[in-house]
Amino acid sequence: MSSSPTDFGPPTSGPLADLLALLKDAATLKTAADTLAWDEQTYLPDRGGDFRADQLAALAGLTHDRLTGPALNDALLAAEGEGFPDDSAAAACVREARRDFDRRTTLPRQLVEELSRVTTLAQRNWAEARKAADFAAFRPHLSAVVKLKREEAAAVAAGRTDLADRPAYDALLDDYEPGASSEQVAAVFAELRDGLVPLVHGIAESNVSPDRSILSRNYPIAAQDAFCRSGAEELGFDFEAGRLDTAAHPFCTTLGPADCRLTTRYNVNDFSQSYFGVLHEAGHGIYEQGLPAEWFGAPPGEACGLGVHESQSRLWENFVGRSAPYWKHVGPQARAAFPEQLENVSDDDLYRVVNDVRPTLIRVEADEVTYNLHVLLRFELEQALISGDLPVADVSDVWDEKFDAMFGFRPPSPADGCLQDIHWAAGLIGYFPTYALGNVYAAMLWNAAQKELGDLDDQLAGGNFAPLRGWLTDKIYRHGRRYAPTDLIERAAGSPPVPGPLLTHLREKYGALYGLN
Amino acid sequence: MSSSPTDFGPPTSGPLADLLALLKDAATLKTAADTLAWDEQTYLPDRGGDFRADQLAALAGLTHDRLTGPALNDALLAAEGEGFPDDSAAAACVREARRDFDRRTTLPRQLVEELSRVTTLAQRNWAEARKAADFAAFRPHLSAVVKLKREEAAAVAAGRTDLADRPAYDALLDDYEPGASSEQVAAVFAELRDGLVPLVHGIAESNVSPDRSILSRNYPIAAQDAFCRSGAEELGFDFEAGRLDTAAHPFCTTLGPADCRLTTRYNVNDFSQSYFGVLHEAGHGIYEQGLPAEWFGAPPGEACGLGVHESQSRLWENFVGRSAPYWKHVGPQARAAFPEQLENVSDDDLYRVVNDVRPTLIRVEADEVTYNLHVLLRFELEQALISGDLPVADVSDVWDEKFDAMFGFRPPSPADGCLQDIHWAAGLIGYFPTYALGNVYAAMLWNAAQKELGDLDDQLAGGNFAPLRGWLTDKIYRHGRRYAPTDLIERAAGSPPVPGPLLTHLREKYGALYGLN
Repeated sequence: MSSSPTDFGPPTSGPLADLLALLKDAATLKTAADTLAWDEQTYLPDRGGDFRADQLAALAGLTHDRLTGPALNDALLAAEGEGFPDDSAAAACVREARRDFDRRTTLPRQLVEELSRVTTLAQRNWAEARKAADFAAFRPHLSAVVKLKREEAAAVAAGRTDLADRPAYDALLDDYEPGASSEQVAAVFAELRDGLVPLVHGIAESNVSPDRSILSRNYPIAAQDAFCRSGAEELGFDFEAGRLDTAAHPFCTTLGPADCRLTTRYNVNDFSQSYFGVLHEAGHGIYEQGLPAEWFGAPPGEACGLGVHESQSRLWENFVGRSAPYWKHVGPQARAAFPEQLENVSDDDLYRVVNDVRPTLIRVEADEVTYNLHVLLRFELEQALISGDLPVADVSDVWDEKFDAMFGFRPPSPADGCLQDIHWAAGLIGYFPTYALGNVYAAMLWNAAQKELGDLDDQLAGGNFAPLRGWLTDKIYRHGRRYAPTDLIERAAGSPPVPGPLLTHLREKYGALYGLN
Repeated sequence: MSSSPTDFGPPTSGPLADLLALLKDAATLKTAADTLAWDEQTYLPDRGGDFRADQLAALAGLTHDRLTGPALNDALLAAEGEGFPDDSAAAACVREARRDFDRRTTLPRQLVEELSRVTTLAQRNWAEARKAADFAAFRPHLSAVVKLKREEAAAVAAGRTDLADRPAYDALLDDYEPGASSEQVAAVFAELRDGLVPLVHGIAESNVSPDRSILSRNYPIAAQDAFCRSGAEELGFDFEAGRLDTAAHPFCTTLGPADCRLTTRYNVNDFSQSYFGVLHEAGHGIYEQGLPAEWFGAPPGEACGLGVHESQSRLWENFVGRSAPYWKHVGPQARAAFPEQLENVSDDDLYRVVNDVRPTLIRVEADEVTYNLHVLLRFELEQALISGDLPVADVSDVWDEKFDAMFGFRPPSPADGCLQDIHWAAGLIGYFPTYALGNVYAAMLWNAAQKELGDLDDQLAGGNFAPLRGWLTDKIYRHGRRYAPTDLIERAAGSPPVPGPLLTHLREKYGALYGLN
């Protein structure tokens, strides 16, 4: 009998159980820190920040000690000696825990501390520089971050044969998208770009446009909140094991095996911002809630990678939440939530206005079509930054040129250009591509689900999301980190990552919406 | 120059600085746990409880290790060798930290673990037994708790010469009210009882009664919440360093030097429950916010004891919040918050109805006069439980007899009798007396403040609470644990704890309200 995750839970004794106990112990402290970090973003009083930083640093130190200490290494060695079958959850647990341990211990302590110091400073400076629209002020901080990230890449690559003779950038990318190479990602993105640019131009030249006045009315926060909760709950987010709160920067965080928390923010004139923000975070949350709780704290209980995680937020937000059949289902609810504001607004009006495609400056506010181009731009720039082909001093100018080439206009200020995202200041280089990979994966999974589940449109129009959720649980959620991201996608969707399904989806959907066919 | 707390902050190097670093380290972890405990009471999803218990246990273990380990003992020994002047904050810091260390390490680990196990079970059982009004079901749990608390008392007393030849109960009381003896407390309480019983009877026989219909209308929660916040803020609770949230059991908890959190609960028919609940917790919070932040985590930055803490919640709740001048000030605000509900309700009507005195069954719902009798009853019973004079089997019957003797009627069920409080199930024996001591201290402080501040009534009627808050800061808050509770009260109010001021206050106030003079 083969050991599939459904018939193989974690052991209660032996070397693997010992390993799991150590990982659980670290996860208990890490989630305690995550709870404090959640509180910092949601409820912490104004003056509580300094001491909260002390608390988080103390817990981070304790967690780091456990995750890099000799006890864990000994437990890993013992578990590695067990010889679990290659395809088993146990083998994946040991393999991935070893991967994490090696990645954590491969970096010299001095580099880790320097990175922490430099990125803390850089993030503070970034906030000021963005406010002042002053790239020159941020430049020395970005230089320092890039220098240290190159050192990090070199240290990681030195311990890994699979990273030999590959660009330094790959060692960074690998942290967020295990097993990915920039060469493969670049190939996918090139095809994506070739398909998207003409589509964006076609839409821009179309004389079709939605009734944008719908999203500039007055939508009381309390009614938005209730509408958002109902949306997340219908998709399958379990509020008995989760929450929704307000934060300046929306996120999803898991604080325990039955405690997943979403946040959103409200624009009183546009209910769609909070609504799709919540469907997006609920997509992350449904994935987290679908992971096998019995492996909590260990790799089989963890999400596979950032690309797959984003595929879930995007699938629930865009492929479900921005679809025509979904708005057949939810349109009446929207009109009930906002009876005066949406009087005489039809399901089709709503469907059209929540799919308004326009080249805009800010990634996080971009529509389903142009969003990917924002990511591609960042991917090209950060590869060149790490390789040294792009001097830090030129980042703002090159950003603006590339943006112009894609969208036909230049950002009026670096605040709307290369200073718009916090990622680089935080040392998150290699992270951006996972956003577009998520869209690519989501389209592939959507196609596969459609083939296997019959008429998904009918199910969405009927508010019946359980079959889709069940399919995703079976194909993605229950496997945790058992497979590498590309393997997991190939097992679920029948091919390695390809951009075709995403391009087809966007061409068909927006071709129809904008009369391009 | 003498070293008063105002001119003597914590040192930055030397043995005392080393001690403070260790204490701060433990406080950082303890407040992390406290944050998780706060979250458990306010926002934790329904299914998150089991894992939260794991997180809290892990953090409790880490904190305990730091607070009982050899490193702290070594630092204490080194600081003790410094010979700080007796009256200095430094000397108090070392003395009190030693006291805490010895108390924590004097208990055998087996007893600590057994107490934790037994009280966890007892609290779960208590909730069920209370629901079923079944004292017999709770009896074995109470027996087990009493047995272990006797062992705790013996272990504590064995290491303390000042506890020799005194009742075992004193070793428990000493944990909550440092330096107190049951003999002194009993003398204060006997005088209190002798004064209160005739007052309660006089009020019961009076034919004056307030318009109780005022507190059985419909008060929307959002309006109550705004009214409560305004009340706490006016008294001086700093919302930039604190919060107010909703919880089933109201409390105040400090999560950092600038992070103090209050909770309350709302009764939609009676705004006074949330309002006085918030003024009470705000009183605790104003004390916490007034402690010297530079000593955070060490005794000079901690509250002096539970009696003094309760004196602050009671002073702000009752002596300020339930006074006639306060309702002259706040009456218009109440009518603005609840315009329809309080139409034609005068300041005097409000003052009278929030001072409605009636013998009732439940301590936490009792008025300012009868409240103390509830506490006296528990004090007598728990002394007898620990001494062995009262068999556990007789607790419910003796409770009902004593209650009858005080109030003239018997509780209809043990759920409203000896099962009403969680304290004994939680192992909190010796804690109850601090509630009534708090009232005794509050009255003494109020008298002293009146003498020194001039016409307090005018200040309250004008909404001017800063002079009182300043006086309390000077006399109480800034001293932290520098003095023992009775010494602190004597320094502030001119005499050791005596019940006279409280009795005089209650006789004068309620004599006037109920036409007894």
